Amino acid sequence: MLKSLNTSSVFHIFGYLILMLGLMLFLPLVISFIYSDSSTMGIILSILISIFTGFLIVKFTKKNSELSIRDGFLVVGLGWLIIALFGALPFYLSGAIPSFTDAFFESMSGFTTTGASILSDIEALPKALLFWRSFTHWIGGMGIIVLSLAILPMLGIGGMQLFKAEVPGPTADKLTPRVKNTAKILWIVYVGITAVEVVFLLFGGMDLFDATCHSFATMATGGFSTKNTSIAAFNSTYIDFVITFFMFIAGVNFALHYKFLIGKFNSYWDDAEFKTYMFLTIGISLIITFSNYFAGVFNSLFESFRHGLFQTVSIGTTTGFGTHDYETWTSVSQILIFILMFIGGSAGSTGGGMKVIRLIVVIKQGLIELKKLLHPNAVISLKVGKRVIPKDVTFSIIGFFLLYVFLFILVSISMTFLGLDIVTAAGTSAACLGNIGPGLGMVGPTENYGFIPAIGKWILSIAMMIGRLELYTVLVILTGGFWRKR
Amino acid sequence: MLKSLNTSSVFHIFGYLILMLGLMLFLPLVISFIYSDSSTMGIILSILISIFTGFLIVKFTKKNSELSIRDGFLVVGLGWLIIALFGALPFYLSGAIPSFTDAFFESMSGFTTTGASILSDIEALPKALLFWRSFTHWIGGMGIIVLSLAILPMLGIGGMQLFKAEVPGPTADKLTPRVKNTAKILWIVYVGITAVEVVFLLFGGMDLFDATCHSFATMATGGFSTKNTSIAAFNSTYIDFVITFFMFIAGVNFALHYKFLIGKFNSYWDDAEFKTYMFLTIGISLIITFSNYFAGVFNSLFESFRHGLFQTVSIGTTTGFGTHDYETWTSVSQILIFILMFIGGSAGSTGGGMKVIRLIVVIKQGLIELKKLLHPNAVISLKVGKRVIPKDVTFSIIGFFLLYVFLFILVSISMTFLGLDIVTAAGTSAACLGNIGPGLGMVGPTENYGFIPAIGKWILSIAMMIGRLELYTVLVILTGGFWRKR
Repeated sequence: MLKSLNTSSVFHIFGYLILMLGLMLFLPLVISFIYSDSSTMGIILSILISIFTGFLIVKFTKKNSELSIRDGFLVVGLGWLIIALFGALPFYLSGAIPSFTDAFFESMSGFTTTGASILSDIEALPKALLFWRSFTHWIGGMGIIVLSLAILPMLGIGGMQLFKAEVPGPTADKLTPRVKNTAKILWIVYVGITAVEVVFLLFGGMDLFDATCHSFATMATGGFSTKNTSIAAFNSTYIDFVITFFMFIAGVNFALHYKFLIGKFNSYWDDAEFKTYMFLTIGISLIITFSNYFAGVFNSLFESFRHGLFQTVSIGTTTGFGTHDYETWTSVSQILIFILMFIGGSAGSTGGGMKVIRLIVVIKQGLIELKKLLHPNAVISLKVGKRVIPKDVTFSIIGFFLLYVFLFILVSISMTFLGLDIVTAAGTSAACLGNIGPGLGMVGPTENYGFIPAIGKWILSIAMMIGRLELYTVLVILTGGFWRKR
Repeated sequence: MLKSLNTSSVFHIFGYLILMLGLMLFLPLVISFIYSDSSTMGIILSILISIFTGFLIVKFTKKNSELSIRDGFLVVGLGWLIIALFGALPFYLSGAIPSFTDAFFESMSGFTTTGASILSDIEALPKALLFWRSFTHWIGGMGIIVLSLAILPMLGIGGMQLFKAEVPGPTADKLTPRVKNTAKILWIVYVGITAVEVVFLLFGGMDLFDATCHSFATMATGGFSTKNTSIAAFNSTYIDFVITFFMFIAGVNFALHYKFLIGKFNSYWDDAEFKTYMFLTIGISLIITFSNYFAGVFNSLFESFRHGLFQTVSIGTTTGFGTHDYETWTSVSQILIFILMFIGGSAGSTGGGMKVIRLIVVIKQGLIELKKLLHPNAVISLKVGKRVIPKDVTFSIIGFFLLYVFLFILVSISMTFLGLDIVTAAGTSAACLGNIGPGLGMVGPTENYGFIPAIGKWILSIAMMIGRLELYTVLVILTGGFWRKR
């Protein structure tokens, strides 16, 4: 049975979140001092507001014993929204982004690791705010890894129950102790890999600032760059391949990284989702490479491969970095890139989209239905790797797939109501729901979301959040049943 | 257990089908005499080939006791292909369509009630062949009604088992007796309504030839017209509304028409699928009407409604007649029209697409998954109207939905390989798989499929057939298990 909502405890957590955000803002403040840029006062103000608000909330609510599942939904669903609201303050209060709608869009895009921007001149932003943009990605990525490997499995969302106990930790029913332990382990991995990428990028000639910002955005599969032309600005084959490699890593289930690091060297190869993810990446990047090469988009096969692989991984992992404008590529390349937007990364990674594992289950279920026509009474179980997927999990995953498709259509329709053409509407919808960033049409890789009407930016911001939180987490809060008193 | 294939019996049926086709060709032959057009020799040749081939096959195969389910799949899946091949002969042998690929495309488009054409100048075709185009629709429509209400329910395909015993007839397990009875009843309804439409169109000033051809195409939700500009050519509000009405009727489950005609006057209103179909039609046509009107596409609200309603019903029922070029409409209208291509008509109608009932089940299942998150142990059954849908039927319907989406993507991708842009590729794929006719991009309502490379025409022809035969019927034949000896 459902317990009643523990509102005080939930707000207590929100209070801490806002407090933490205030503390995190000291980092961009330091950057602001170093570069003595124009955002100092805005950041100080944001810190004061956040710490004061957070402090008040923590003070006037009390931590109660433990959280119910319903409380968990509320913490996750509203927590991201609240963080994005406060995270928008530095952009807005510094005057760098004069519209609050835009500031909120940029902040939500950051924390959801989407990377869609309203900025037409990114490089005009004060350094401290460039840093903050990348940092929001990184924080969001941290949140997502813990969410998808420790919290969602317990809430039983969209098949994430498959990942129960993927990562060690006390298996008590209570949410808190397990989460803390799992989180610690995963964050060490996350921080470690990020640090390695920074070093690699420094070797490629990036300065520490750019290397850090891009590593944040890579590991979170975010996509915000400090440059107007994204990764293309560095014009370096070495940097392209380093970032390709780390984006690929970021799109892998972090539980596998953990297992690998503690000595289970077969962890990747034993994982059906990883294998599919890898073969998909290789297959699609090769098709794109040859398609573009033979159509004369690139003069050398190597250049075609370099950009084809980069873009396949960038969109497939839902990062959204760019080295070349894929809207100038062949239609084969474009449609594959569009499809990649829906597939997304692996479950338990920082990647968005539907996730590879769900695609596997959904396709296998389709094939089972076909077999059943010939053998109506046969009991055929759905296996992924050596693992049998229970029927209710299959239903849950298919439900997720359906909901994803419906939301994609719904957001697309709402965008056409704002006057966007069909391709752009579908592009914004896919790119925001899947947390990618660049889309198609007027929001292609060389364009931005600035021109979209304010209401559209709010819809897309919410779409980013819904997509990021595996749909159900947000949608369940919107159902009447969630709030009914009992 | 599966019985072994009864190849001789199956071919016996094919022989009869080809013979029947030969006999049906006497109708266009008569038309050809009346108008003394250039197709006479071609049609006579087609008749001779068909009757001779059919006769030979019937002669050298024997009718065996009864057909197994597997035989049933083969009859349906290959039968349509064979009919389309022979149905292409008059176009090809008369020289009116010089490429056999094109002739086959046109014929398959006819028998699958799609209405996609390779002709740029329709009116240049000899009258007899114009008649034959429309007649292939009508025959295809007849086939589909019987298939979906009498054969597919027994094969248990994509949830069609829901319609078991919707229409009276002996309920023995054997395929043949039940089919014959059901077919007779349904065909009387089909012929009757077609005749009524002819009369109504005559009143609108159409000549008998055009009235007949357009009634054939309407009741089959086909879409072939005898005019280059489709229904717009008649420039008559009366004709627009008459055809709108009959297209709507053709998109309704024919079992409901039957029930209504034998005095069960609540048949429509008691049916959940009908209600959804009606409200969808009304809702979408009103949105399109206002969207176009306020955007200034039409000067008068009435004109906007006339064309908005016509196009909503035409695409929603997958007919594909046109009175106005919807590619000049607002993006809201265009995206809704594109979505209508997927929804399609009701099950048991001549309409294609996914069918309204499947949409209902799929959406309800998504909502159930949402409820389950809050009540993990609750048993929530899926109801449509007062009827509980069994779990295996739900799975079967969802499987259909998934397969439809995958096929749509697959055909779209294959079209981009032929150099089509993304929008056109998606347009051809949706329009052929859903048996609509006109699509988007370069295959919009004022364009045709002539420019598509030959291989693309074959792919799209097969897509039409797969879509028309509820996917599984064709796909199951392509599985290895189907042909395995035992």
